[in-house]
Amino acid sequence: MLKIGLLGAGRIGRVHAEAISAHPKTELTAISDAVNDAAVGLAAEYGARVQSSDEIIGDSTIDAVLIATPTDTHSDLIEAATQAGKAVLCEKPVDLDLERAKICQKAAGATGQPVMLGFNRRFDPNFQALKAAYDAGEVGKAELLSITSFDPAPPPVSYVKVSGGLFRDMMIHDFDMANYLTGQIPVTISAVGTSVVDPEIGQAGDVDTAVVTMAYADGSLAVIKNSRRAAYGYDQRVELLGSRGLLQAHNVLENSVVKSTADGVTGAKPTYFFLERYMAAYRAEWDAFTRAIQSGSNVPVTLEDGVAALAMAEAATRSAKSGRPVAMEEVF
Amino acid sequence: MLKIGLLGAGRIGRVHAEAISAHPKTELTAISDAVNDAAVGLAAEYGARVQSSDEIIGDSTIDAVLIATPTDTHSDLIEAATQAGKAVLCEKPVDLDLERAKICQKAAGATGQPVMLGFNRRFDPNFQALKAAYDAGEVGKAELLSITSFDPAPPPVSYVKVSGGLFRDMMIHDFDMANYLTGQIPVTISAVGTSVVDPEIGQAGDVDTAVVTMAYADGSLAVIKNSRRAAYGYDQRVELLGSRGLLQAHNVLENSVVKSTADGVTGAKPTYFFLERYMAAYRAEWDAFTRAIQSGSNVPVTLEDGVAALAMAEAATRSAKSGRPVAMEEVF
Amino acid sequence: MLKIGLLGAGRIGRVHAEAISAHPKTELTAISDAVNDAAVGLAAEYGARVQSSDEIIGDSTIDAVLIATPTDTHSDLIEAATQAGKAVLCEKPVDLDLERAKICQKAAGATGQPVMLGFNRRFDPNFQALKAAYDAGEVGKAELLSITSFDPAPPPVSYVKVSGGLFRDMMIHDFDMANYLTGQIPVTISAVGTSVVDPEIGQAGDVDTAVVTMAYADGSLAVIKNSRRAAYGYDQRVELLGSRGLLQAHNVLENSVVKSTADGVTGAKPTYFFLERYMAAYRAEWDAFTRAIQSGSNVPVTLEDGVAALAMAEAATRSAKSGRPVAMEEVF
Amino acid sequence: MLKIGLLGAGRIGRVHAEAISAHPKTELTAISDAVNDAAVGLAAEYGARVQSSDEIIGDSTIDAVLIATPTDTHSDLIEAATQAGKAVLCEKPVDLDLERAKICQKAAGATGQPVMLGFNRRFDPNFQALKAAYDAGEVGKAELLSITSFDPAPPPVSYVKVSGGLFRDMMIHDFDMANYLTGQIPVTISAVGTSVVDPEIGQAGDVDTAVVTMAYADGSLAVIKNSRRAAYGYDQRVELLGSRGLLQAHNVLENSVVKSTADGVTGAKPTYFFLERYMAAYRAEWDAFTRAIQSGSNVPVTLEDGVAALAMAEAATRSAKSGRPVAMEEVF
Repeated sequence: MLKIGLLGAGRIGRVHAEAISAHPKTELTAISDAVNDAAVGLAAEYGARVQSSDEIIGDSTIDAVLIATPTDTHSDLIEAATQAGKAVLCEKPVDLDLERAKICQKAAGATGQPVMLGFNRRFDPNFQALKAAYDAGEVGKAELLSITSFDPAPPPVSYVKVSGGLFRDMMIHDFDMANYLTGQIPVTISAVGTSVVDPEIGQAGDVDTAVVTMAYADGSLAVIKNSRRAAYGYDQRVELLGSRGLLQAHNVLENSVVKSTADGVTGAKPTYFFLERYMAAYRAEWDAFTRAIQSGSNVPVTLEDGVAALAMAEAATRSAKSGRPVAMEEVF
Repeated sequence: MLKIGLLGAGRIGRVHAEAISAHPKTELTAISDAVNDAAVGLAAEYGARVQSSDEIIGDSTIDAVLIATPTDTHSDLIEAATQAGKAVLCEKPVDLDLERAKICQKAAGATGQPVMLGFNRRFDPNFQALKAAYDAGEVGKAELLSITSFDPAPPPVSYVKVSGGLFRDMMIHDFDMANYLTGQIPVTISAVGTSVVDPEIGQAGDVDTAVVTMAYADGSLAVIKNSRRAAYGYDQRVELLGSRGLLQAHNVLENSVVKSTADGVTGAKPTYFFLERYMAAYRAEWDAFTRAIQSGSNVPVTLEDGVAALAMAEAATRSAKSGRPVAMEEVF
Repeated sequence: MLKIGLLGAGRIGRVHAEAISAHPKTELTAISDAVNDAAVGLAAEYGARVQSSDEIIGDSTIDAVLIATPTDTHSDLIEAATQAGKAVLCEKPVDLDLERAKICQKAAGATGQPVMLGFNRRFDPNFQALKAAYDAGEVGKAELLSITSFDPAPPPVSYVKVSGGLFRDMMIHDFDMANYLTGQIPVTISAVGTSVVDPEIGQAGDVDTAVVTMAYADGSLAVIKNSRRAAYGYDQRVELLGSRGLLQAHNVLENSVVKSTADGVTGAKPTYFFLERYMAAYRAEWDAFTRAIQSGSNVPVTLEDGVAALAMAEAATRSAKSGRPVAMEEVF
Repeated sequence: MLKIGLLGAGRIGRVHAEAISAHPKTELTAISDAVNDAAVGLAAEYGARVQSSDEIIGDSTIDAVLIATPTDTHSDLIEAATQAGKAVLCEKPVDLDLERAKICQKAAGATGQPVMLGFNRRFDPNFQALKAAYDAGEVGKAELLSITSFDPAPPPVSYVKVSGGLFRDMMIHDFDMANYLTGQIPVTISAVGTSVVDPEIGQAGDVDTAVVTMAYADGSLAVIKNSRRAAYGYDQRVELLGSRGLLQAHNVLENSVVKSTADGVTGAKPTYFFLERYMAAYRAEWDAFTRAIQSGSNVPVTLEDGVAALAMAEAATRSAKSGRPVAMEEVF
């Protein structure tokens, strides 16, 4: 039984608490949060103790930590935890600052401790089935990848202001998905963004709707579409056009019921929230992390993966601002 | 160019007029109808002449006749036309009276003239694709066939009274579809009917909703569901469970547009009316008839097929009335 | 925390052990099984103790028992457990013998203890969504209900011989679903069965493919189709035609991926096994039972429901053997 | 009855010959083609006479001409025909050279004769249904439009060399579709292209796979994806994300049959060729042209529309070559 310390008891921390607790090989031992009441409440729910992040990292009985704190603390905590000999699963992104993330990558790498990045969508069974079909050669070689990723509703502008922007906060998942599916990093990235959903998001210097086009060294292309609002729910789709066909991962629907009346034929909406869509993925992510550190094998999503996605977000941010394509070698 | 005489200028006669006229190898030469104005109007539209049915049948320049008159005239006209050396395409059913239909079958058969029954659904590309897949062995041997056939709205009670009843008027198409797909006639037929759509249909001695179960000599089963009302359109589906899988022919939709909003995900309805759904089938039916009589090969739907479907309707009618299964050998 | 005794540690017992154990308000305290090793193994997995059924029923610290033993023990155990003051959740069917089930119903009813029948499909979110839409009047009044229920592969003939036959063993779920959805018991039942999947099933006196038609007092109809074999997985669908439209609960698929190549457009199959399809339903069923006994409210599926479904299975069995419709009042 | 002269008897000329001939209000009177045999063959099929283009344009009994000749003759023929008082329906594009097209627009405009551009997809019932739903406000205001347009197989390189390139030859349809659906011309266009389908296409200076992003003055975005190869057929889809929902026009399939076996659930492919997908659209296009010139109302697709789409193709071509976004005001 691995003893786990959870740093951060906010929304995403609670998701991980459930996954850690439900796993037969891990025990949620200690929880920290800057807001002490949050830690106390969650600890009571799962029979864990409350400690500070420093105490958890310094506790030699803790085997691994899961970092679900605000983004600006990730690099420091990864470094401290790995230097204390802990295995780490850290929520995305590594950092809002690419240079800081690279330093963290080097420092953590030097410790030899496993660090896994929390790109949960890699563990979604639908995207995994798409990748398995692609890797098995079922549609030939990839020529054009399309990722659609729309949130149901925009976050508060207060959140937008500290989020690092849509490309680092939201599209980073899609950059990682592109890397995961194609096994490549693009050569150039072109981004166009707009704030058509909420003008206040634009006034805060961010965009809420964006299209990013990526060109790869092997001649293939990818396009990512993001919107902060889809009135019908959480829209998460992938299409991969290959030389011999097309693979599509469609949305997951709330149920399988279809109603036909004089007004039309109506089925269920996509699941509305990321937890409904991805809870199984969070559980599978945690299981993959647990298996890797128990077997001593490599974690399936690395700090390098996190830095690569962040670099792509950096390039897209620059492209959207400058109105010109940005080469990955400019940022990476 | 084959010269065609059309007997009957009503709703279904107009459908056939268009198919005859659009066909490159046939010419709509003459039209008859008990309501002279109907014949005159349709003849003007297609540049045909108006004659009586007797004149058309007696006209040696006419190669074939299409019988689209009221059902109670079908047997007499088939007999007269074949005895006059005409090829015949006759709308279903052969007759409301099974014994009369058998006499007609014998009389027409004696002439050697080709007589094709107008079971247009055999020519629907979707059902043909299903049959082709089944005949190619793609799902193994048939075990359970299901046919769903719902009209959008019930006919007037005045029509119901002279229709011969749901089994002879409406389900006869499904009986023929079952024969077409399985290549077999059932051993027993069990029918349950009700008049839940419109009580006046029940008062007129008919049913508007019915389920028929059929058992075949090879151990397989079939079930047919009919309703005179489907608020969402013309519902025409077939499912064939075989030893190695399932074939389904789904509905044909009005268009391919899907709308996703906070209220759900809504697509188009099935086409509402039989003409929208089956116009291509009527054209293909006419083409098949034309090819058969030009090449001297057998027509693809025979008078025997028409009598078989009528016998099944007779058995179902008796079963629904008596509340017991009826063996086909009782009626056939 | 309710202390639960589990009677039966076979396949379905294991499903319930997981649901009991995962529930925050219940504790799997004791397990019995005629095969002691099965009980020992499962008890070790969940930290429960092994006892005999008699000991569990006689243990005053146990609040409720879940009966997952062979069918022929259900009635005795329900009676004993209720007389010992336990709440009971019992797997379907109540008994293979309708008369014995009625005696059990009377005896258990006299104790006033809650007894819930394990018709898990009532808790499937898809069927619940269909029922909610129907109850909300979205398609008007029910006219024709269709239930398709195919297993992926037939059970061993040894099982078939003791199963009570397809109608009592398999279709009983569909009888209950019809009762659940329509809120009615039919007036007459007509059944046709065949053994086209496996002739040995026929030699054992049972059928493997069956169609049952039911007529209700309000004039509506229902049809149930069962097959012991669907090569593509576990096919579980419901269609309800109402006066203003159609509700369909489609299958649940393994994933949302679709592949388009020169060979066609291929999506995932339905989930293959009942556990994949219905695990969420088993958890919801257990939660509903727990809530009912904690709040003192009525259980959502009663012993009466179990007896009604069994009576319908009895009627269908007689109809399939005699070849005539059977009135429910003959058996009930 | 309008008398029509058809200029061009190639592949697309034959499509129009059928539509003209089938229309109740138009008569295919004369046909010209640089390859005389092509004109002779087609004229024989439809009972038309063969003339030179000049003769047809000069023939005062001809009411309108349909121009389906090679692109480099379009401008000259539009000018000549309008100056001769003819109404014109001209295949897309107006010209490969934007400046020449503008001159033609001015010259033809001066005659006051109606000139309609052959953007047939505007008449596809699926895209029309999508536009109708959008115009009715069913998904609020457009924020992100996506057009997917893949051909089944690349054309010969010899064709590619004279085609004007993918943006002018193929994506021009999608540019027009964007203009049609949004009612706007974009402010900037960013294009990325590659020749991953066939390297010879790249050697010929063209691309075979491309993504174009467009930004509009109202803050909304559009993205168009083109590929010269989709192994599964002709892939023609549109998605419009609005403030209150999403509209999607899915592909049209060859039939409605679905097969479920142990290997998966397989449906029909999209129709393979543009004629199968768009024959109804060509007929509706011709009908719209005919109605406009008979009623004296404006044609529904104008020469201005043709020049606008051509300007967008010019901008995309420049963007793909230069690697930077191109403002429409640079080209327009």
